Amino acid sequence: MIFGLVKRNTYQDSVNLMLLSSKLSSMDGVSKVSIMMGTPANKDIFKNTNMYSVEFDTANPNDICIAVESEDSSMVSVVELELDKFISELSLSSRGSNIIKVRSLDTAIKKMDNTNLALVSIPGEYVFDEGNRLLDKGLNLFIFSDNVSMEEERKLKDKANEKGLIVMGPDCGTGIISNTPLAFANVVNKGNIGVVGASGTGIQEVTSLITRLGGGISHAIGIGGRDLALEIGGISAMKALELLEYDDSSELIVFISKPPAKEVKEKIVSKFKTMNKIVVALFLGDGQMEREDNVYFANTLEETAYLSLYLSKKFGSSKNKLEKIMGKLEIIKKNPNQRQIHGYYGGGTLAGESKNILKEGMLNSKHRIIDFGDDQYTKGRPHPMIDPTTRVEAVKNLKRLEDVAVVLLDNVIGYGSNTDMAGSLGPAIMEVNEYYKDSGREIVFLASVCGTEMDKQVYSQQVRILEESGVLVLDSNASAAKLAKEAVEYLDKKNDIKKDVKPNILNSELRIINVGLESFSQTLFDQGVDVIQYNWSPVAGGDKELQRLLRILKDK
Amino acid sequence: MIFGLVKRNTYQDSVNLMLLSSKLSSMDGVSKVSIMMGTPANKDIFKNTNMYSVEFDTANPNDICIAVESEDSSMVSVVELELDKFISELSLSSRGSNIIKVRSLDTAIKKMDNTNLALVSIPGEYVFDEGNRLLDKGLNLFIFSDNVSMEEERKLKDKANEKGLIVMGPDCGTGIISNTPLAFANVVNKGNIGVVGASGTGIQEVTSLITRLGGGISHAIGIGGRDLALEIGGISAMKALELLEYDDSSELIVFISKPPAKEVKEKIVSKFKTMNKIVVALFLGDGQMEREDNVYFANTLEETAYLSLYLSKKFGSSKNKLEKIMGKLEIIKKNPNQRQIHGYYGGGTLAGESKNILKEGMLNSKHRIIDFGDDQYTKGRPHPMIDPTTRVEAVKNLKRLEDVAVVLLDNVIGYGSNTDMAGSLGPAIMEVNEYYKDSGREIVFLASVCGTEMDKQVYSQQVRILEESGVLVLDSNASAAKLAKEAVEYLDKKNDIKKDVKPNILNSELRIINVGLESFSQTLFDQGVDVIQYNWSPVAGGDKELQRLLRILKDK
Repeated sequence: MIFGLVKRNTYQDSVNLMLLSSKLSSMDGVSKVSIMMGTPANKDIFKNTNMYSVEFDTANPNDICIAVESEDSSMVSVVELELDKFISELSLSSRGSNIIKVRSLDTAIKKMDNTNLALVSIPGEYVFDEGNRLLDKGLNLFIFSDNVSMEEERKLKDKANEKGLIVMGPDCGTGIISNTPLAFANVVNKGNIGVVGASGTGIQEVTSLITRLGGGISHAIGIGGRDLALEIGGISAMKALELLEYDDSSELIVFISKPPAKEVKEKIVSKFKTMNKIVVALFLGDGQMEREDNVYFANTLEETAYLSLYLSKKFGSSKNKLEKIMGKLEIIKKNPNQRQIHGYYGGGTLAGESKNILKEGMLNSKHRIIDFGDDQYTKGRPHPMIDPTTRVEAVKNLKRLEDVAVVLLDNVIGYGSNTDMAGSLGPAIMEVNEYYKDSGREIVFLASVCGTEMDKQVYSQQVRILEESGVLVLDSNASAAKLAKEAVEYLDKKNDIKKDVKPNILNSELRIINVGLESFSQTLFDQGVDVIQYNWSPVAGGDKELQRLLRILKDK
Repeated sequence: MIFGLVKRNTYQDSVNLMLLSSKLSSMDGVSKVSIMMGTPANKDIFKNTNMYSVEFDTANPNDICIAVESEDSSMVSVVELELDKFISELSLSSRGSNIIKVRSLDTAIKKMDNTNLALVSIPGEYVFDEGNRLLDKGLNLFIFSDNVSMEEERKLKDKANEKGLIVMGPDCGTGIISNTPLAFANVVNKGNIGVVGASGTGIQEVTSLITRLGGGISHAIGIGGRDLALEIGGISAMKALELLEYDDSSELIVFISKPPAKEVKEKIVSKFKTMNKIVVALFLGDGQMEREDNVYFANTLEETAYLSLYLSKKFGSSKNKLEKIMGKLEIIKKNPNQRQIHGYYGGGTLAGESKNILKEGMLNSKHRIIDFGDDQYTKGRPHPMIDPTTRVEAVKNLKRLEDVAVVLLDNVIGYGSNTDMAGSLGPAIMEVNEYYKDSGREIVFLASVCGTEMDKQVYSQQVRILEESGVLVLDSNASAAKLAKEAVEYLDKKNDIKKDVKPNILNSELRIINVGLESFSQTLFDQGVDVIQYNWSPVAGGDKELQRLLRILKDK
């Protein structure tokens, strides 16, 4: 038997309904439970799944409808008891949170200045009205909701475009703005790769792979699965590319979508080519394509990640690594004599590689890269990959030097090598770091470890020991050498005149109004993002006629 | 004061001398210690460093010479005591090892059949004679020793070439043959990238980076730093490329060296272009070069690793992953009806990617990739990235199917997703695996996890749970789909006719005679490699005249 239960005026978002459903389904005596808000569409689903009950006839979108399949009619009251308990618990736990909650958009706007983004996850049929209001308030939109018509999507995007705003979505599952994951997203490394994607899990796979491979993401902008359809014409894609084009932190652009409509694709690819950045494009399912100018084509999400990582290693800067030593660099910058790079190497080819990297574009030859494996340093002693003595002495000798700003080191582990080179170099480095600090100066140690987790010295352990000694450990020797170079270039540079880019969603602090799923607010709040929860529920209990009348009254 | 001490006829390799040196240096009352075998070259070093003592006048290469700087002449006898203790301890610990040790090459050869490699680390001045003898016995050479003249190197390599053998080195620091690290090398992943390098730490950096990035190495062949000089003409480089060209496990070739002599470079690059494999070449310091046909040029070791990894993802097969499921595939192969791939996906784009990968070259359409996020599966229930129910049911239903050989799964973690999807899918997978096993069949589960270590579900934990449930987890969805495809292609394939490649160092089991540094033998022994330690010491105590006479006598 199907029993119907309606709980009036208790709008709950889909996540809460799901929690409730899993709770009620596990009760003894209940064989099946289906729970939805009483919208016309949901009533149809009840009917199609043979779970409809006459009680639902009068239900509104603001009412919870519960269909219970059971042999025992007394279960209905048991279910109702559980339901009330659940709702009161929800409201308790919700009251316990520190997130500001409001019940109208105007209050939300009043409570937070400079709001720049609305995260929208209300039922699709209400998105157009709400979206219009939010755009009118000057907010960018991230629309998680689906079931928005193509026509409504186009209108919202046209309006946003006129206002210089972006609409991510509808049906946008994933976004990462300034390292803040939105909706279904992963915690990724900060980095120099900017992503635009018409696909949620596509963005997740590429940004996760890049992160696991040691690269990083500046922003990942979802545009919704239909943005590249002819009817929409890639309005959000073009806007996202434009934003990334002028975003300094995005040195390389990744674009992911299914093959767009032909005209839209031509427009997008032309845009790629006008950009002064390398673009890695994946039109999933489009078959093999060759490179065209600054645009590299990939064929799978995996290839996209590997290719963009390779290109970002080849052409990118170490800007976000530079931030990690900025504190020290600011102090070094004050002493104009301290501009040298010294490299103390055990590995000959690694020393050679660093020399090559420093040579490029560096006119002065004051820098010194020493290969301590050279015959002149090994007479009568073992190789520096075995015996740390000569390099420990060189490090300690930095106390007597005035002009060294950055020190490069390698640490080649594996068979044959010293069992704990980091443990030998570490104390000397700490000593030098402290000596500099005591005299009001700073010095930067950069290193890389050559080896693997399976080596007996264990890659990650050697990295940790060096880090604990005050060394910034890079993923490779080339990365370390490039960073040393950029650090000295920074020291030599006069203070920047900031480029005049208007404030936008990428270069401003995120301030979000979350319209819908409360769990999204909690996630943002936990990440330290400024967020207000707008506890949306359908106006006039979702009664369309009443809503129309209210609108007429308001417009008067 | 410098005191000299000579210990007659106690030849020790350089590693042992180093251990001794570090022991003696730390004694109270001793300000400096220098220890070397009494070769003419070493005596010169004593002189140049002001550590010479008249006692050394009569020392032979077989005698240990110790120079002690101390104020106290009585220290000499204390040092001598320590020395004797050290040597007797060494001989004790050496006797305790299970490695077979011999004192002549002939005995070594007698004790081990099919020896195919000699690892040579004796002083450079003896390498030519010993190397010739080893080549005459049909052994490939890995010469770790330096100080071999260019002329001798050329002669050894010419001789090897005539015999179809390879000489790695001299001054060869690194090699990895069939996943066995030789000399100074790292423990790397097995994989499809074959490396040739004229640089030790260059090979180490590239093979370690590839491993840390999830790729793998088939072989890494060191050729010695001078092989590409005009005088040698790249004899070993050409031989190494030839070996890799016919080696099935090497799908992509990496070549690393400093810029070779012009003629040699032309020869090497021409060879690259005749190879039916992609080559990533790094001539370190040669400046930017573009791609030429199948040859891609890199500029740093890091770029070499990233580029080769990208290309091996793009063009390589999953051959060595296939090995991990070969046990199951052999059983499945017996049942000709079991040839389908089923994919049960939560991520829409991931499902789409798999469909694309399976489409390529697969004419039949029996395979089924289901996107459980499609509307038809989500009516009235949460998305499959949140709710595992539909996929758990699909997995359990495999018990009722007869024709599925490989199952593909995704697991998208991160914000919004289920907190433990692997924990929900795992038991169902285990159940199915056991059910198949009980009925004498097998089924293969392949999966990938989309997310990072920083996600609350933790990438590596989700991987572990799936693996413990009997799933092979690949690094990406594309890798999983490609492996599924190759697995089914393998099932459909008639048994191979093996290609007729002559036995060589890459396709035969390594059987090594280690001539010199005993620690190299120990390392190989610990890795389970067949090795005999040939405790080489200079013939006739290193007396050149006596050696000459002995040779004449022997030749008679």
